[in-house]
Amino acid sequence: MLSSKKKYIVSGNSGIKAQQIQFADQKQEFNKRPTKIGRRSLSRSISQSSTDSYSSAASYTDSSDDETSPRDKQQKNSKGSSDFCVKNIKQAEFGRREIEIAEQEMPALMALRKRAQGEKPLAGAKIVGCTHITAQTAVLMETLGALGAQCRWAACNIYSTLNEVAAALAESGFPVFAWKGESEDDFWWCIDRCVNVEGWQPNMILDDGGDLTHWIYKKYPNMFKKIKGIVEESVTGVHRLYQLSKAGKLCVPAMNVNDSVTKQKFDNLYCCRESILDGLKRTTDMMFGGKQVVVCGYGEVGKGCCAALKAMGSIVYVTEIDPICALQACMDGFRLVKLNEVIRQVDIVITCTGNKNVVTREHLDRMKNGCIVCNMGHSNTEIDVASLRTPELTWERVRSQVDHVIWPDGKRIVLLAEGRLLNLSCSTVPTFVLSITATTQALALIELYNAPEGRYKQDVYLLPKKMDEYVASLHLPTFDAHLTELTDEQAKYLGLNKNGPFKPNYYRY
Amino acid sequence: MLSSKKKYIVSGNSGIKAQQIQFADQKQEFNKRPTKIGRRSLSRSISQSSTDSYSSAASYTDSSDDETSPRDKQQKNSKGSSDFCVKNIKQAEFGRREIEIAEQEMPALMALRKRAQGEKPLAGAKIVGCTHITAQTAVLMETLGALGAQCRWAACNIYSTLNEVAAALAESGFPVFAWKGESEDDFWWCIDRCVNVEGWQPNMILDDGGDLTHWIYKKYPNMFKKIKGIVEESVTGVHRLYQLSKAGKLCVPAMNVNDSVTKQKFDNLYCCRESILDGLKRTTDMMFGGKQVVVCGYGEVGKGCCAALKAMGSIVYVTEIDPICALQACMDGFRLVKLNEVIRQVDIVITCTGNKNVVTREHLDRMKNGCIVCNMGHSNTEIDVASLRTPELTWERVRSQVDHVIWPDGKRIVLLAEGRLLNLSCSTVPTFVLSITATTQALALIELYNAPEGRYKQDVYLLPKKMDEYVASLHLPTFDAHLTELTDEQAKYLGLNKNGPFKPNYYRY
Amino acid sequence: MLSSKKKYIVSGNSGIKAQQIQFADQKQEFNKRPTKIGRRSLSRSISQSSTDSYSSAASYTDSSDDETSPRDKQQKNSKGSSDFCVKNIKQAEFGRREIEIAEQEMPALMALRKRAQGEKPLAGAKIVGCTHITAQTAVLMETLGALGAQCRWAACNIYSTLNEVAAALAESGFPVFAWKGESEDDFWWCIDRCVNVEGWQPNMILDDGGDLTHWIYKKYPNMFKKIKGIVEESVTGVHRLYQLSKAGKLCVPAMNVNDSVTKQKFDNLYCCRESILDGLKRTTDMMFGGKQVVVCGYGEVGKGCCAALKAMGSIVYVTEIDPICALQACMDGFRLVKLNEVIRQVDIVITCTGNKNVVTREHLDRMKNGCIVCNMGHSNTEIDVASLRTPELTWERVRSQVDHVIWPDGKRIVLLAEGRLLNLSCSTVPTFVLSITATTQALALIELYNAPEGRYKQDVYLLPKKMDEYVASLHLPTFDAHLTELTDEQAKYLGLNKNGPFKPNYYRY
Amino acid sequence: MLSSKKKYIVSGNSGIKAQQIQFADQKQEFNKRPTKIGRRSLSRSISQSSTDSYSSAASYTDSSDDETSPRDKQQKNSKGSSDFCVKNIKQAEFGRREIEIAEQEMPALMALRKRAQGEKPLAGAKIVGCTHITAQTAVLMETLGALGAQCRWAACNIYSTLNEVAAALAESGFPVFAWKGESEDDFWWCIDRCVNVEGWQPNMILDDGGDLTHWIYKKYPNMFKKIKGIVEESVTGVHRLYQLSKAGKLCVPAMNVNDSVTKQKFDNLYCCRESILDGLKRTTDMMFGGKQVVVCGYGEVGKGCCAALKAMGSIVYVTEIDPICALQACMDGFRLVKLNEVIRQVDIVITCTGNKNVVTREHLDRMKNGCIVCNMGHSNTEIDVASLRTPELTWERVRSQVDHVIWPDGKRIVLLAEGRLLNLSCSTVPTFVLSITATTQALALIELYNAPEGRYKQDVYLLPKKMDEYVASLHLPTFDAHLTELTDEQAKYLGLNKNGPFKPNYYRY
Repeated sequence: MLSSKKKYIVSGNSGIKAQQIQFADQKQEFNKRPTKIGRRSLSRSISQSSTDSYSSAASYTDSSDDETSPRDKQQKNSKGSSDFCVKNIKQAEFGRREIEIAEQEMPALMALRKRAQGEKPLAGAKIVGCTHITAQTAVLMETLGALGAQCRWAACNIYSTLNEVAAALAESGFPVFAWKGESEDDFWWCIDRCVNVEGWQPNMILDDGGDLTHWIYKKYPNMFKKIKGIVEESVTGVHRLYQLSKAGKLCVPAMNVNDSVTKQKFDNLYCCRESILDGLKRTTDMMFGGKQVVVCGYGEVGKGCCAALKAMGSIVYVTEIDPICALQACMDGFRLVKLNEVIRQVDIVITCTGNKNVVTREHLDRMKNGCIVCNMGHSNTEIDVASLRTPELTWERVRSQVDHVIWPDGKRIVLLAEGRLLNLSCSTVPTFVLSITATTQALALIELYNAPEGRYKQDVYLLPKKMDEYVASLHLPTFDAHLTELTDEQAKYLGLNKNGPFKPNYYRY
Repeated sequence: MLSSKKKYIVSGNSGIKAQQIQFADQKQEFNKRPTKIGRRSLSRSISQSSTDSYSSAASYTDSSDDETSPRDKQQKNSKGSSDFCVKNIKQAEFGRREIEIAEQEMPALMALRKRAQGEKPLAGAKIVGCTHITAQTAVLMETLGALGAQCRWAACNIYSTLNEVAAALAESGFPVFAWKGESEDDFWWCIDRCVNVEGWQPNMILDDGGDLTHWIYKKYPNMFKKIKGIVEESVTGVHRLYQLSKAGKLCVPAMNVNDSVTKQKFDNLYCCRESILDGLKRTTDMMFGGKQVVVCGYGEVGKGCCAALKAMGSIVYVTEIDPICALQACMDGFRLVKLNEVIRQVDIVITCTGNKNVVTREHLDRMKNGCIVCNMGHSNTEIDVASLRTPELTWERVRSQVDHVIWPDGKRIVLLAEGRLLNLSCSTVPTFVLSITATTQALALIELYNAPEGRYKQDVYLLPKKMDEYVASLHLPTFDAHLTELTDEQAKYLGLNKNGPFKPNYYRY
Repeated sequence: MLSSKKKYIVSGNSGIKAQQIQFADQKQEFNKRPTKIGRRSLSRSISQSSTDSYSSAASYTDSSDDETSPRDKQQKNSKGSSDFCVKNIKQAEFGRREIEIAEQEMPALMALRKRAQGEKPLAGAKIVGCTHITAQTAVLMETLGALGAQCRWAACNIYSTLNEVAAALAESGFPVFAWKGESEDDFWWCIDRCVNVEGWQPNMILDDGGDLTHWIYKKYPNMFKKIKGIVEESVTGVHRLYQLSKAGKLCVPAMNVNDSVTKQKFDNLYCCRESILDGLKRTTDMMFGGKQVVVCGYGEVGKGCCAALKAMGSIVYVTEIDPICALQACMDGFRLVKLNEVIRQVDIVITCTGNKNVVTREHLDRMKNGCIVCNMGHSNTEIDVASLRTPELTWERVRSQVDHVIWPDGKRIVLLAEGRLLNLSCSTVPTFVLSITATTQALALIELYNAPEGRYKQDVYLLPKKMDEYVASLHLPTFDAHLTELTDEQAKYLGLNKNGPFKPNYYRY
Repeated sequence: MLSSKKKYIVSGNSGIKAQQIQFADQKQEFNKRPTKIGRRSLSRSISQSSTDSYSSAASYTDSSDDETSPRDKQQKNSKGSSDFCVKNIKQAEFGRREIEIAEQEMPALMALRKRAQGEKPLAGAKIVGCTHITAQTAVLMETLGALGAQCRWAACNIYSTLNEVAAALAESGFPVFAWKGESEDDFWWCIDRCVNVEGWQPNMILDDGGDLTHWIYKKYPNMFKKIKGIVEESVTGVHRLYQLSKAGKLCVPAMNVNDSVTKQKFDNLYCCRESILDGLKRTTDMMFGGKQVVVCGYGEVGKGCCAALKAMGSIVYVTEIDPICALQACMDGFRLVKLNEVIRQVDIVITCTGNKNVVTREHLDRMKNGCIVCNMGHSNTEIDVASLRTPELTWERVRSQVDHVIWPDGKRIVLLAEGRLLNLSCSTVPTFVLSITATTQALALIELYNAPEGRYKQDVYLLPKKMDEYVASLHLPTFDAHLTELTDEQAKYLGLNKNGPFKPNYYRY
C-alpha cells in the first residue's frame, strides 16, 4: 500500500468563485483543489482547540479582536512600515515569545544561521513564500533573512495562520500577508500582494501546495525568467510539478523536498510511532495493554503504529496488499490477516494505507460494541464514513473529535475525527519534526540558488543525498550524538568522499 | 525505594476549624490530614479540566447552577424521597448516561451482578460508604445494591464529586450526601448524615482515607458492636488501621484492599507504563525518540516508566538505592547511575521513589536548558519545588500544569504539575483500572460480610489470595482470554485445589 | 502454576543397593531419590558434549586416563598430602586454568575475599560440602578458605565432577573426594571420607540435594551437637529440610538459599530469557521471526521465554491456570488461550508450568508437521513423552538431543531433549548466574556461623533480606552500576536504615 | 557505511597457477580473486564443524572414503549414466534424506513446482550452474528440472560441496561435477565439464561469484550467441558484471539478484538479528543482560544486531559515519558515540560497517579485560587482527573460533573467528533464508528465459519489482499469512495493477 503520508484534507466548501473568470481553463483542477490543512504545520492551532494549555495564548489573539477585515485596516509597525497585512500588529510581542520558544527546539536552523553568517549564501535571493504561518515558519523565515535573503510571505491555508506570529514577523520587518480566517478572495489577494510589488521581483519560490506557483504561472508568467527555482514540500504541490514537467510546461528547476529520506522517516515512522498513542489517549483515555488491534497497511506509518502498540502490550494484527511489506510484518511478529478474519474480535481498527474504502460499512456492521475506528493514513477516504450517515444509525458526539455511532441494537462504534487523520486532528506534531522539514526547505533553497548554471534543468529534482545527510547532521547535536569521520585510508577503501554522500541513491535505510 | 504509590496530595488550605473543639486530642493528626485528591478516582474530573472533550458534560453541571448550598435546598427525587443531599437532582439524567458508559467498561462488576443474582450475598448488609463519587463508584454502589445491600454514601473528598452522578444515584434511591465544593463543615455533616439515621444502623464500612471510620470511632463507638468489618483502600486509611490495630484499639476486622496483587500491578506497573507517555505528551508535545531520560526509582512505577520510554526510543538511565532493584534495572538494559552523573545531560528527569528531596535545588541548578522535570511517585515531596521559590528565579506558567522556571542566565526548566503526581494531574486513569479496584472492594465486602464467625479477628487482613485471583478472573473476558483448568490428576500432582488459590502468599508475580 | 524451577532429573537407573541394609526405613524415599544433574552447575560439562569448543579441554581429561578406580590409587599432591581422592592429581594444572578463568567472571566472590581479608569471618569454621564440583565451585571453596574456613568436599552428583578441577583443588590442599563416573557405592564412600575424619569435626554443612545432611543424620547424629547450621540450595534438599522441621527432627538451624530473591530471578527470568533462544538455535537452527509459539505457563520462566521470543519476532500465545498470571500475560501483549485452540497452528510448543502432562498425546497427534516441542519447566513430566513410545510412531535421532517422531502419515514432530529441560540439556548456564548462587551460599554460611546465640532456632530460614541485597550489591560492579545512598534525612523520612534492608519481606520485585 | 553484506572471505592460499598461462591478461584479477566461502550456503558444512549434531551425517561422508581423486574413478548411477563426477555415488541415499528435509523448509520452491507443472516455463532451457552444492541447492536444481529445464552443475567453492548431496543429484540424473576438497585445477576442470559437452549447449547461466561466466567468456565466447541471460547472486559476481557492462563487453542480459529487496532484508536485517545472539552464545556462553555493547555501523546488519541485543537487556552504543543512519540510531534509542568514547567500558565490540580497520590496535589496547571482539560485517578487514600478531601478545585458543589474546599485564581480549564473519563462522543460516535466495534465482531464470525480445538488453538488471513481490508472496504461507487483494475500485484509485507491482522502484521498505 502507499506508505507515504498524504497531508491534506479535502474540505467541501472551498468555493473559488473569485477566480472563475480568469482561469476558466483551470476550472476542473480548481474545483478539486483541496483547502489544505497541512498536518505538520498545525501543531499550534490544534493545540489551541484540543487542550486548555493554549487557551491563554489563544485568548489574547481572538477574543479581544475586532471584526474589521485586516484588508480594511491601516497598520504600521514600530519602524513605520506598512508593507504587510496581518490581523493586529499589536500582538507582535506575544508572537515573538512563541518564536523564541520555537527557536530553542529548532537548533538546526539556528546552527545554519551561525555557520552561514559570514558568507550569506542567500545574499541577493528574493524569496516569495506561501506556507502555513506558525512560529516554526517564522524561525525559517528569519533564518533565510539571516542568510541574506529578502522574503515576502503569504499563508497557504485560510485557517492555519497564527495571528500573533504574523504580527511579530511584520513588526520585525517581514512583509507578511496572512491572517486566520481569510476568505477565498483574501487568500488570493494576499498571494498577489507578495508577488505583485513595484520594484521587487522574486527569484526563488518556496511553496506548500502549489497555489503560489500556480498564481505566478497564470498571472505573471514572465516572472519565471528571473526565477532560479521552486522548492515545494507538499504531496499535492509535488504532484502538480510532475504534471507540469510531464506536460513540458515547467520552465524552471523545481525541488521536491517532500521525498527526502530524513523528512519522510520523521513525518511517517518516527512521528506516527508516538502520535498513534497520543491521539488514542487524548480522545478515549483507553488502556492499550491487552487490547486487540488491527492495523491496515504496513508502510512506514503502519510500522510505526504497530511497533508502538506492541510495546504497550496490545496484540496487533496487520493487513497488507503488498507481499514484501506483508513478509516484513510477519518477521516483525505480527499476524497477517484479512480484515474480515479479525473484524469481530478487535478493539481498535487503524487504517494507514493511502487507499480508499479499506474499512467498509460491512466491516463496521460486524465490529463489536465499543470498537474504536480511526485513520492515520490518507485524507478521509480510508474509512467509508459516508456509509454511516444513514437513518438507522444514531450519531452522538461525546467529545470533540469523538463520535459514538449507535446501531439499532445499541452497539456503539467509537469513530475518531470522523475518519480524518487522527494525528492531524487529535495530536500535535513535535517541533523537532517541523525542524527537519524547515531545514530541508532552507537547504533546498540554498542549493537551487547557488547551483552552477546547468546543474539543474527544467525538471523536478529530489534533494541531493548530500544535502539530505546535511539536514540529518544538523539535528544530531540535539541528541549529543557524535559522528565518526572516515580516515583517508577508509574513504579510499570504500571509494567515498569523506564528507559524503555515503550511500547510493537506491539505498533503503 | 518504596515502590508502592502513595495516592494523596497535601493541599495546604484544608482548614478543619469546625472540628477543633470536639477533637482537640486529634488536632495534630487532623492538621496534617491531607485533603485527599485520590489519583485513581479523579479520571472524570481531571478530564473536565484538562481537555475540552468533557466541556459539554461539564457545562450542564457548573455554569447553570445557582449558588445556594445544597444543605439549604429542599429536593425530592421522582419517587418522592428526600433522603439525600446533592447539588441538583435535576441533573440525574446526565449522570445516568455517564454511569451507563462506565458500565460498559466495568464488565467485572456487571458479571458479579449476574452471577450473584440468585443468592444475594449481601442480603441484609447495610453499608455506609465514603469514597470519591464518580460514575465508576456509582457502578460499584448499584452492584452492591443488586447483591442485596442497602447503602448510604458520602464523599471522601470535598472537590471530587461529580454532581450529576450524585444526582443520578439519589434519583434511583440511594441516600447520597455529597457535592463538588463542600466546605470542611459540609464534609463532616455529610458523613454524619450517612451514619446518624433513625432506625438504620450500618453493619459494614467501605472507606477511602479513613475519615468515615474515624468519625464513627469518635462519635458513635457503640456502632461497632454491629459492624462486621471495614474495607479500606487507601494507603493513608490502611496506615491508620494498622496504627489502631497496633494500639489494640481496632474493634472489628478490617481488610486492606490496597495491597492486593491485582490492584497493585494495575495501579502501578500497567497504569504508569501508559500514563508517563500520556502525561508528558499532553503537557509538552515533546518527542520521545532519542531523548535522554533519568528515572529515579525502579519499583513497579519506575519499571513501567522505563519500559515505556525505552520502547519509544528514549535512552533511559536509572537511579536506585536498593541493590536488588538496581540489579533488575541492569538486567533490563538500563545504566544504573547516580543522579549527579547524568544530571547535566538528560532531557527529562522523572521521580518515582516514594522518597523526599530526590531532586534537589543543586540538581536543578545543573540541569540543561529545557530539561523537563516531573514526578510519578509520591505526593509532592520528591522534587524540592520549594527550593525554586526564590527571588532570582522567574516562574512562567506556559500551559495548565506546565511552568517554566527561568534562571538569571535564561536557562529554563520545564516543571510539570508543580512537582505533584504527573499521572494524577496531567493524565487520566482508564476505567479498566478503576474497575479492578471497585471489584476488589466489592469482593472484600462480600468476604467480610459472609465470613464464618472466627475467620477474621480484630485485625487488618489482606484480601485472601483466592479473592485476588477471582478479581483477576472476572477481568479476563475483556481480553477474550481463556483460562486453562487443572485436571484432577494435575491438581493432585501439584497439591492444589482446582479452583485455587494457585500460589503461596509469598509468590512474587 | 509452579513457577520455581525444579532442577533435578529423575534418572531411572540410580540403584542404591549398597545402602539398602543400613537404611531400610528410608528405602522408599531413596528409591525415588533422583540422581541429580543440577541444571546450573553443569555449564562446563554440558559444553563439553554439545560443542566442539571444549573438546580440547575434555580430551586431556578423559581419553588419556586409565581405568583404575581412584579409590585404588595412591596419589599425593606436591606438598605430600594424600588426604583427597580424585581421578588424576596430574591434571591439576589444567584445572587451575579453568578456575582462573572462572574467577574473572565471579567478581563478587573475589570481592568478598578482599573485603573480609582482615577479619576472617569464617575463622574456625569447618565446612563439609557436597555440591557439583566445577570451576565455579572451586572459586567458592577457595573463597571460603580465604575467609578462614577449613573445607572438605564431595560431589553431589556421580557424573558432574570435572576431574581436572578436583585435581587442582586437591593440589592446593583441599581434601576433595570426587570424580566423574562414581558408582553409587563410591558416592557414599566419598561423602563418608569427608565427615568421618579423625581429629576433625565439621561445624557447618553446605549441601546441594540433602544427601550429605541425610548421611550425617543417619550415621553420625551426634555430630549435630557441634554443627552451627546447614545451608541448602536445591529444591529437593529444601523440601527435605522442611519435612524434617515439620516432623520436629531438625536439630540445627538451616538456611534455604534456593528461594532468595536474587537467585530466583537469575535462575528463572533472566537466565531463561536467554537460554530459550540458545537452546532452540543450537538444536534446530530455526528462524524465530514470524513463528507461532505457544508457551504453557506464565511464571518467571514463562515470562522470560515469552519476552525473548516476542522480541525476536515470534507470535506468542500463552496458556495459564492462574488468573493473576493470566492477566499479566494479557497486559504484556500475549493472547491467552487453551492449548487446544492453537495446537494445530503453532510451530513451537514450550512448557514451563511445573505441572505434569501439560502436553498430551492428543495434543501431539494434532500438531502440524515440523512442530517443535520442548520443555523449560520441570523434570520431564510436562510433556507426555511416554505416550510417544508406541509402535506406530517412528523415532529418528537427527542430532544429539533432537528426535524426529514420525507419524504413519509422514508427519514429523521435533522433540528436544526427550522432554527434559531444554536449558539443562541444550544450552549452558552463564557463569554470572552461578556466581549469584555461590555468593548467596557463602553469605549464608557467614551469617549462620556468626549469628549470635538465639537468632536462629532449629528451623528453616530464608536468607535475610539484607544478605540478599548484599549479594545483589556485590554483582553491581560487573555492570559499572552506581548505587545511590540515602541521606540521613531521607532514611529518617522513609523509616529505613541507610544500609538496608530496603524492602519489606512481602515485596514482590 | 556500506550496509550490504559482503559474503566472501579472502583466503590467502588460493593459488591459481594452473591458469596462469592461458589467462595472462587476467592475472592481476585472478590473484586477488577470493576463494569464496559463501556465507549463506555454508549452513550445513558449518553445522558439521560446530555442533555434534551433524557428526553422524558427516561421518558417513568423510571417514569411510578413500583417497582416490573422483576424477580417477569410474562411477555409474543406477540408471547406468556416468555423466557426472562426485566423490562417491553410493552416498546418494544419505544425500536424498538431507534433500527431503530441506524440501520441507523450502515451501516456496515446492509451490513453484506445483504451480508451473502444467506450463513448464523452463521447457527448452539448458542451464549451466555454478553454486555451492548443498541440500538447498539440490532443491533448487530439482525444481528447475521440474519446470522443464536441463541442468549441468559445478561447485563455486572448493570446500563447500556436500558429497552425499552431490551423489544424490547424480543418482537422480543430474550431471554434477563437484566434491569437497577440489584442487584449483579440479575446480576449473569441473566447470569445463559442465559447458564443454558435445551436442549440448547452455542457453542460461546461473552463477555465484562469476567464475563460470568468466570461464565461458575466456574459453567459449561464441557460446554467448545462444545464451539468453545470466543470473548472478554474489556481490563479487555482480561487481564483475557491472564492470563488463561498463566496459561494453557484456554481450547478454544479466540479472543481479543480490540486490532484490526480499533477499537483502533476509540476508541482513532478519538473519543477523538472530545470528548475533547465536554466534555470541555458541562461542562464549555469555549472558547478554546488562552488558555494554558497541555496534559499529547502523546499516541493516547493525540495525539487526542492535535490536536483538537491546531486547536481551544489553546497553548498546552505536558508531556511524553517515548522519542519516546516525539519526536513525538516535531515534531507535541508541547513544551515538565515537568508538574512543566507550572503548574502555564496553564488554563487547561488534563491527558491521563494510569498512576496514574500524577497530584498530589502539582500540584493542584500551579495551578492558575480557572484552569480546567480533565482526558481523565484511570480510576480515574490519578488525585489524594483523596488528595483534606481535610478539608481546600471547594467543591462546580456548575453543574452536575463540582466541584469547593476552597482553603482558594479563589482560585478555576474546577474539571470535579471528575477525572473520561471526555469523559465517560461529552460527548457521536458517534454511528459510536460503529458500528466499533460491526462489529469487529460479524466478530470475524464468523471467530472463521467457522475456520477449527486447525487454532486456545487454546490461545488468535488478529483479523486476513484481518478481521480488512474487518471491515474498511464495513465502507467506509458511506463516499462515493472508494477503489482502485490491478491489477493482481501489486499484483504480491507487493507479495500480491488482497483481502488483505495488511500489515504485525507489520505495525504501
